[in-house]
Amino acid sequence: MRPNDRKADQVRPIKITRNYTAYAEGSVLVEFGNTKVLCNATVEENVPRWLKGQGKGWVTAEYGMLPRSTHSRMRREAANGKQGGRTMEIQRLIARSLRAVVDLEVMGEIMVTVDCDVIQADGGTRTASISGASVAMADAFQHLIDNGKLKKNPMKGHVAAVSVGLLGQDVLCDLEYVEDSAADTDMNVVMTEDGRMIEVQGTAEGEPFSHEELLSLLESAKKGITEIVAAQKAALEN
Amino acid sequence: MRPNDRKADQVRPIKITRNYTAYAEGSVLVEFGNTKVLCNATVEENVPRWLKGQGKGWVTAEYGMLPRSTHSRMRREAANGKQGGRTMEIQRLIARSLRAVVDLEVMGEIMVTVDCDVIQADGGTRTASISGASVAMADAFQHLIDNGKLKKNPMKGHVAAVSVGLLGQDVLCDLEYVEDSAADTDMNVVMTEDGRMIEVQGTAEGEPFSHEELLSLLESAKKGITEIVAAQKAALEN
Amino acid sequence: MRPNDRKADQVRPIKITRNYTAYAEGSVLVEFGNTKVLCNATVEENVPRWLKGQGKGWVTAEYGMLPRSTHSRMRREAANGKQGGRTMEIQRLIARSLRAVVDLEVMGEIMVTVDCDVIQADGGTRTASISGASVAMADAFQHLIDNGKLKKNPMKGHVAAVSVGLLGQDVLCDLEYVEDSAADTDMNVVMTEDGRMIEVQGTAEGEPFSHEELLSLLESAKKGITEIVAAQKAALEN
Amino acid sequence: MRPNDRKADQVRPIKITRNYTAYAEGSVLVEFGNTKVLCNATVEENVPRWLKGQGKGWVTAEYGMLPRSTHSRMRREAANGKQGGRTMEIQRLIARSLRAVVDLEVMGEIMVTVDCDVIQADGGTRTASISGASVAMADAFQHLIDNGKLKKNPMKGHVAAVSVGLLGQDVLCDLEYVEDSAADTDMNVVMTEDGRMIEVQGTAEGEPFSHEELLSLLESAKKGITEIVAAQKAALEN
Amino acid sequence: MRPNDRKADQVRPIKITRNYTAYAEGSVLVEFGNTKVLCNATVEENVPRWLKGQGKGWVTAEYGMLPRSTHSRMRREAANGKQGGRTMEIQRLIARSLRAVVDLEVMGEIMVTVDCDVIQADGGTRTASISGASVAMADAFQHLIDNGKLKKNPMKGHVAAVSVGLLGQDVLCDLEYVEDSAADTDMNVVMTEDGRMIEVQGTAEGEPFSHEELLSLLESAKKGITEIVAAQKAALEN
Amino acid sequence: MRPNDRKADQVRPIKITRNYTAYAEGSVLVEFGNTKVLCNATVEENVPRWLKGQGKGWVTAEYGMLPRSTHSRMRREAANGKQGGRTMEIQRLIARSLRAVVDLEVMGEIMVTVDCDVIQADGGTRTASISGASVAMADAFQHLIDNGKLKKNPMKGHVAAVSVGLLGQDVLCDLEYVEDSAADTDMNVVMTEDGRMIEVQGTAEGEPFSHEELLSLLESAKKGITEIVAAQKAALEN
Repeated sequence: MRPNDRKADQVRPIKITRNYTAYAEGSVLVEFGNTKVLCNATVEENVPRWLKGQGKGWVTAEYGMLPRSTHSRMRREAANGKQGGRTMEIQRLIARSLRAVVDLEVMGEIMVTVDCDVIQADGGTRTASISGASVAMADAFQHLIDNGKLKKNPMKGHVAAVSVGLLGQDVLCDLEYVEDSAADTDMNVVMTEDGRMIEVQGTAEGEPFSHEELLSLLESAKKGITEIVAAQKAALEN
Repeated sequence: MRPNDRKADQVRPIKITRNYTAYAEGSVLVEFGNTKVLCNATVEENVPRWLKGQGKGWVTAEYGMLPRSTHSRMRREAANGKQGGRTMEIQRLIARSLRAVVDLEVMGEIMVTVDCDVIQADGGTRTASISGASVAMADAFQHLIDNGKLKKNPMKGHVAAVSVGLLGQDVLCDLEYVEDSAADTDMNVVMTEDGRMIEVQGTAEGEPFSHEELLSLLESAKKGITEIVAAQKAALEN
Repeated sequence: MRPNDRKADQVRPIKITRNYTAYAEGSVLVEFGNTKVLCNATVEENVPRWLKGQGKGWVTAEYGMLPRSTHSRMRREAANGKQGGRTMEIQRLIARSLRAVVDLEVMGEIMVTVDCDVIQADGGTRTASISGASVAMADAFQHLIDNGKLKKNPMKGHVAAVSVGLLGQDVLCDLEYVEDSAADTDMNVVMTEDGRMIEVQGTAEGEPFSHEELLSLLESAKKGITEIVAAQKAALEN
Repeated sequence: MRPNDRKADQVRPIKITRNYTAYAEGSVLVEFGNTKVLCNATVEENVPRWLKGQGKGWVTAEYGMLPRSTHSRMRREAANGKQGGRTMEIQRLIARSLRAVVDLEVMGEIMVTVDCDVIQADGGTRTASISGASVAMADAFQHLIDNGKLKKNPMKGHVAAVSVGLLGQDVLCDLEYVEDSAADTDMNVVMTEDGRMIEVQGTAEGEPFSHEELLSLLESAKKGITEIVAAQKAALEN
Repeated sequence: MRPNDRKADQVRPIKITRNYTAYAEGSVLVEFGNTKVLCNATVEENVPRWLKGQGKGWVTAEYGMLPRSTHSRMRREAANGKQGGRTMEIQRLIARSLRAVVDLEVMGEIMVTVDCDVIQADGGTRTASISGASVAMADAFQHLIDNGKLKKNPMKGHVAAVSVGLLGQDVLCDLEYVEDSAADTDMNVVMTEDGRMIEVQGTAEGEPFSHEELLSLLESAKKGITEIVAAQKAALEN
Repeated sequence: MRPNDRKADQVRPIKITRNYTAYAEGSVLVEFGNTKVLCNATVEENVPRWLKGQGKGWVTAEYGMLPRSTHSRMRREAANGKQGGRTMEIQRLIARSLRAVVDLEVMGEIMVTVDCDVIQADGGTRTASISGASVAMADAFQHLIDNGKLKKNPMKGHVAAVSVGLLGQDVLCDLEYVEDSAADTDMNVVMTEDGRMIEVQGTAEGEPFSHEELLSLLESAKKGITEIVAAQKAALEN
């Protein structure tokens, strides 16, 4: 039995709060159960040097965890003097996922940076980050349209992500921390709203997994992402 | 006239939310108007190496700003590979202020670290941090008492802080960002609840200030801190 | 048509040279066409601090590229003062892949570090690294058995990896650099010799990919990995 | 009784040696008793990038301690790979203090950097640095006038600083190291030559301090600074 | 008696393999017995900023050791976050040695960087690096001539280097690791092909050395370098 | 003609001031003409970890230049976040030179660190550092003997150093900055007081140098060092 009587294929309660802070062009607090991530999208009217003069935009992301977002305190990366490998992996993943649903040519020479800062971590922070960042980015583009800086919305659709895992024989959707720690296989799936895949990252922590298990994991992820996309759309309609 | 029709000696609306996150032994979101800081106190049952074996405790603090807590995005310090001078100055100030109201001998060999992370910045983040951290630390000590780890509360009283400034001829209390940028002199005052001083840091940004001006600033600070201490006590009584 | 008239599902010529350098307990030069990686396995009779006293071993990996392993010179990471995000991602992947085929309890308190240094890069350096590192690790364990340090071989089987990709409608196996740059989707697959999966990392660089495309990619990867495992076994029999 | 029979309000013997080194545009060795700081002012005919094209100058400062300026050897910051928080705090304070007496518009696009390097430390290194740097900066501006680079002197007057402290009931002026370590409250005061304040930084190390104690500390500081300004003027008249 | 019955003045078997990797403009694997260094010369058509617009070229070098090039594994400098002092010393020496035989004016605004990466280390890696880098640089210049980028070869001749040492009474040429560790004095000599000196670096590890001993060491070095230059010329004639 | 009518083989006026600062166990200001270096020797009663328990001592050195010791200001290495290659080269040279005249077994488990900080630089800072550090170290050992911490002096004699150079046809001793910049060959020679060599580092900046030129340089160095040793002895007799 899962915590809070969740069913195997059930995602945690999702809450998406827009305009969470006052200054960012898009600001979203996304909650998947106890996992809470603040996603702030910043618009800047210049692009990285290597892209200048090509008439194209860029989307990037940064990720961080507050030191006490976790059960025991983690060292602050700024005090360590560098971002860890896990942080870099995650922020590269978020950025790739966002770019996959954006037409960079339509953007023109504009850069959007989405900062995903984990306020509270109970598993699935990278997938919550992607799901929240998609909404924050949508608000940032709408801001540009409202201000006459963009004529057409460069977003081709939503992007959402979920983690799924194998715990013994069970395929579980949207793992929370205790499940994630115990899982044999953990898979992060990033999809567009039409159900196609942007990223699939499956890792066997214990035993390797079979082709059939992979198919079950993907099926569970697809179902979960459908619910997340619905929550994204509902949030944007408010 | 100040924004929102504030009077010269009036502090902004203060809101102190305890148990803001789930895992820290003390977790406080403190708001002074639009300035919002999350103060998480962590208890660890060991002390820094240089203090081991002396039977005394330690209180320290770290400070950070989320990249988009400000009007335009700041670079993430973890990505820069170091904490800036301003960050270090502030976290040293917070830690000294907290230690001034704690009996380290009563603590025993326990360490409390308070992380002050700025969610939204509209001036006065260091003084809000101190004022919120005092409450978070109080909750952390209560947690230790409730769990039988401490017999006596090592806190000797509350500590609170406010910024005051000279804008032309006016002495203003609890500066918000637009005031802070325009002020000729800016002073941060940290006091105990009985009105004695822990830190006084006054800086002339424009013209040097006179002895009389200093006295007016201190008087304004004292009045403001009285209100902040009242808010701290009210929060802890809930 | 692929370079050198390769078929879509054909891996490049594989060459595995054991004992390539003189001092490492396992030293393998692995070549996939023009991609050449030196994999040196080092045995140390102590484990990281967090593992001490548990009677278990550890396997880790580091990855680097010589500055001129690529078409244009890359800056040396040691001169940059840090390892990039891509490097950290890859070395974490290699290490997880190797640990998936090792029984850490059988190892006892021994650490194996495999350094994968790319001499020449023509695509697929991470998958070549995993495939070569598996052989270098096997030699290191044999060295420990020959010297009476281990009674039983802790390796549960070989691990091998290949990259597959979608280029237009075509599913290509073992991408070389020009193909990798042009591919819409790129997937790295790590498998055990019995065909189960350790890691699957698929990324859409252009259009998202469908479920059917994913299945085709996995099928191609499995066929390629069968050939790589055969080459690993042949190399170890010499 | 203070060391060397000093009276409570007496500053240590002050010695200001100009032209201490040969190449800097202003070079001053300042001695307050056993505290010795070398203050070298460098003139450069360009300003930081963020100031370019505004027709204004800039004054900045750096601070360092020789490893064996202290009783026991401190680690060299260059070997540590970063400047500590205390160093950054101090050099920011020196720079702000100097800028408070300079008309940046009169300077034109010129930058003055004052390096304050502590040769021997016996308390009060930051206040000695400010007091010496003021003279070094005056020499640098004179150098610019003598060379026809400046028509008008941009310095509006001298700036000097002293530390004062509470030791039990006593208010002591110009603390030396043993006094500083024992003091309950330590206050650094930076003033212009006309007695107005630029910075006031008071810190309770032990008990918080009262309003009356603050007033006594300020009075003592003002008396001390009068003597330091006299020494600055005498040095410049030689 | 030396290992492998070498005579005191005999250099180890030298092997110089050109075009060792595929992309560098000059790529040489140089072997002195068990010491193996890969020297890759890169041509870039721009020069460091401080040299721009002067019509002159530049030659620089970087040096690194693979972690397991040595008997026990060294930490990777990229993981350490900095290059060690020994590395910096060596790469500066290689670069100076190469520049000594190049007419930078003839080069024009072109930069050649030679990366010397030690695959296997058995003493004399810096002198092997210089000797191999000279050949790699020659190939890079020939590449520029063949492509019409240079009309005249800027190399004035070969540069080669050898280490010599005093072991008790014996003067040994081309020390291998066990000899180097035991030597009282170790000297690295860099010469042009006409026998003049570019660098002489002699260090007494044990007893200081006399003038006569210095002369014997230089004589032995000169003889060794003659053989190395012959090997360089033979390699370039193939 | 050399500046100040110096003869080719004449060293600059040497001044050695002992007890220059108050806290170091040995503190020497050494001046060679306008070159001024402060050499502070620190005694610590423990040794680096890798030497513990062997009953032997250690001597090490650090080197730094004050930012405005030179004609134009250099960036502070602490602000840069690392020591440059030249700094590391020099401090390793100083340390090796000092250890060459110390019997580490006689020292027992004691460490001496000599900090050489350049106050003013006019060429020859590394050789002045060695020459001054030898005297500071002698004072530190005498301090240990006076305090009963050592029974026997571990110093086997003095060590001194000088730079010599070829300027056109002339062999010049003790180069000052303008000569050093113009020299074709620059050689640093470190000798014991009995005239044997510890280090010889000759570098051709322009044309390679011949065997005869090397001999002339060494002869000039030997004469200069004789004078420096005499100055060291005179200083220690005061």
